[in-house]
Amino acid sequence: MRNILILGAGRSASSLIKYLITHADQQEWRITIADKDAGHARAMAHEGPEVAQGVELDAAHREARRDLIGRHDLVISMLPAFMHMDVLTDCLALGRHVITPSYVPEALWPLDAEFKAKGLIVLNEMGLDPGIDHMSAMRILDRIRNQGGWMEAFESYCGGLVAPESDDNPWGYKFSWNPRNVVLAGQGGAAKYIRNGEVKYIPYHRLFKETVRIEVPGLGAFDGYANRDSLKYRQAYGLDGIPTLLRGTLRKAGYCAAWDAFVQLGCTDDGFAMELGPGATYTDYIAAFLPSTAGHDARHTTAHALGLAPDSETMARLSWLGLFDRVPIGAEGLSPAATLQRLLEVKWKLGPDDKDMVVMWHRFRYEVEGAAQELQASLAVIGQDQRHTAMARTVGLPIAMACKLVLNDKLEERGVLLPLKPAIYDPILDELERHGIAFNEEEVEA
Amino acid sequence: MRNILILGAGRSASSLIKYLITHADQQEWRITIADKDAGHARAMAHEGPEVAQGVELDAAHREARRDLIGRHDLVISMLPAFMHMDVLTDCLALGRHVITPSYVPEALWPLDAEFKAKGLIVLNEMGLDPGIDHMSAMRILDRIRNQGGWMEAFESYCGGLVAPESDDNPWGYKFSWNPRNVVLAGQGGAAKYIRNGEVKYIPYHRLFKETVRIEVPGLGAFDGYANRDSLKYRQAYGLDGIPTLLRGTLRKAGYCAAWDAFVQLGCTDDGFAMELGPGATYTDYIAAFLPSTAGHDARHTTAHALGLAPDSETMARLSWLGLFDRVPIGAEGLSPAATLQRLLEVKWKLGPDDKDMVVMWHRFRYEVEGAAQELQASLAVIGQDQRHTAMARTVGLPIAMACKLVLNDKLEERGVLLPLKPAIYDPILDELERHGIAFNEEEVEA
Repeated sequence: MRNILILGAGRSASSLIKYLITHADQQEWRITIADKDAGHARAMAHEGPEVAQGVELDAAHREARRDLIGRHDLVISMLPAFMHMDVLTDCLALGRHVITPSYVPEALWPLDAEFKAKGLIVLNEMGLDPGIDHMSAMRILDRIRNQGGWMEAFESYCGGLVAPESDDNPWGYKFSWNPRNVVLAGQGGAAKYIRNGEVKYIPYHRLFKETVRIEVPGLGAFDGYANRDSLKYRQAYGLDGIPTLLRGTLRKAGYCAAWDAFVQLGCTDDGFAMELGPGATYTDYIAAFLPSTAGHDARHTTAHALGLAPDSETMARLSWLGLFDRVPIGAEGLSPAATLQRLLEVKWKLGPDDKDMVVMWHRFRYEVEGAAQELQASLAVIGQDQRHTAMARTVGLPIAMACKLVLNDKLEERGVLLPLKPAIYDPILDELERHGIAFNEEEVEA
Repeated sequence: MRNILILGAGRSASSLIKYLITHADQQEWRITIADKDAGHARAMAHEGPEVAQGVELDAAHREARRDLIGRHDLVISMLPAFMHMDVLTDCLALGRHVITPSYVPEALWPLDAEFKAKGLIVLNEMGLDPGIDHMSAMRILDRIRNQGGWMEAFESYCGGLVAPESDDNPWGYKFSWNPRNVVLAGQGGAAKYIRNGEVKYIPYHRLFKETVRIEVPGLGAFDGYANRDSLKYRQAYGLDGIPTLLRGTLRKAGYCAAWDAFVQLGCTDDGFAMELGPGATYTDYIAAFLPSTAGHDARHTTAHALGLAPDSETMARLSWLGLFDRVPIGAEGLSPAATLQRLLEVKWKLGPDDKDMVVMWHRFRYEVEGAAQELQASLAVIGQDQRHTAMARTVGLPIAMACKLVLNDKLEERGVLLPLKPAIYDPILDELERHGIAFNEEEVEA
């Protein structure tokens, strides 16, 4: 028996746990699900009572955490990013393998040699984005390079969205993950990418203006906005000299122009508490960002301040949120971003019968023997139900499948790993395909 | 003899020191000028060798600092803001009065009772802005209230500029104080003010767009942009219920629209090191913020990206800086803001024969017995020479004059003080007038 410990049993762990339970007998796995909420952990384990157990754990409690880790062979950390380093150093001290869907913390790299020396694997960025993006991109990049191709441009976009069948609002958006991250998306520094050999920067206040229109076969039109650092994986992907490299986030077409209205007004600022007074409405909230609203209709004043036609699509999206209907906020002293989030959590709620959707799109432009080539690869995953959302499946299944690679000793490499090599991406992408998570490739006239 | 210690003998201390030396014999003062640069401190003391001495002090060195403070009756701290609390707590421990031109540190208020108990004065915000702004505003506000007036609106603007006779560039601006602060002006959070009873917020990326045009009698047209927190002194000024309250910064007309080009492009970001490569020019620098410059002239691409006519005044101001002339930057790895600062320090240098100018402008709208009134008060100070700039005189003279009030026991109040009451503002504004620093008041048709 090999014992697997899952730390943190939040929404995105459901499909991971289901896979582990389903494969437990065949793989000789026993699974412990540890969460702050013991009842929740036990409920998650309930699907496979013979192979899984739920336990209570405050992961900030060092002794309890180490004790639990020490009784397992492999740890999967689904904890918030700021708790990762504690778990990783425990795993190093106790000699345990670990898999996470999170970005490699900077402080982890200096420990790489120690993990290697102990024969341990720390497999990071094993979810959707980061995760499936790395694996799908590297499989195609390696194939192009094996054909002798020279990469001219690589663009990659991903979005957690709502399924077309549940898309019934003018934003084409509902929350399938952390609403706060959606409201604050793009903040914290200029976005950086390379176009035609030149490094380019986009300040936050232009991020939702400088978008690209992307057509995904079968799914229609999307807006793509740039991620903060598109160059982060330039070297790891072997793309050091590439003239154009851009990674970004997908939203349904029209979303970004409308979201830009909030950015321009200042509504996404999380840095101060607003003074709106008790009984203030969302119309007062918007008015606080307008130079003068005296004697004018808030909708027209907003349109005028944003330089938009009152009957424009963006104004229709803002109106649909009820911003001009004098709806009470019902809370005081929130930041602009938190006030907006409060409204959006109501308006963009994924309903009980709604399904979410994950979309990923890569474009590769390259030359083989002097001939320009273009390949587009796209992935669309629709959620199965409220538990096994597209987000939970695409984040959780690659991690679960990676457990087989680690525990069945299929990986030669040790230390701090990302899923960038065939030994990891081939078996996992192949198995994801069998679960209906498959990329569609299309050669395009270059 | 009363011993005065000046901590920090930078540019803005010249007129302060000159005043203290000139009045030393009459006031029975002996002056110690302490600076990190001993030669500089001694040179400053040289104007009055019988009454002043220069000494070396690393103000971060606790023992040396306390030893020096202990040997004086009054301390004037001209140190950078982050060093103030150390000096203030020393003065409390050693029982010394202290005067500073800096904002009251938040950590100072809890010590107010201790300063009072020891009979000590900590007189803060005693320079130009903050300083003369408080005194001149409060004198008029108190007068209006004594007339039974009801304040409808108070707007106050100040700027450190270049004198008209030395104004020979299209920006109407040269550096008379810290260039870094000019480049980063307005960053760090939304600006906040009240208009017609509503609290309004302006995000940084709109700050230089939402300006007001201000005509100062005899000096022409200026742009005013809002300071970060106009409401900071609402209570201290006794303006709790005032419908309109706005404090801001003055630039020559046209400056703000042109500066907004840098804000919109992202050039004022101080948060990351640019990757421009050796030999990069300011034209490459600008191009890094433009989506695409391929095959186009940088000047036209910039105008297009900013939505400006190529022959607009803003484009003329940008061109005058040499941004489109392929001028090498000559440094690598700087932030966007630091790169811009490097260029502006050359282009906006106050020359050896140039004079600077300080402008302050207040507008009071109020009602007396049902009649609407408007009063404007303006101040314009031209620098005398490179040492005794308008900035050095308006920052230093109020502090120097305040020494007389403190050491001649003219102030009854003790503890943490701002210059908001007649006991301080009357004698100092009167004496400033005799030094040619006088407000011009004008009743305006309301």
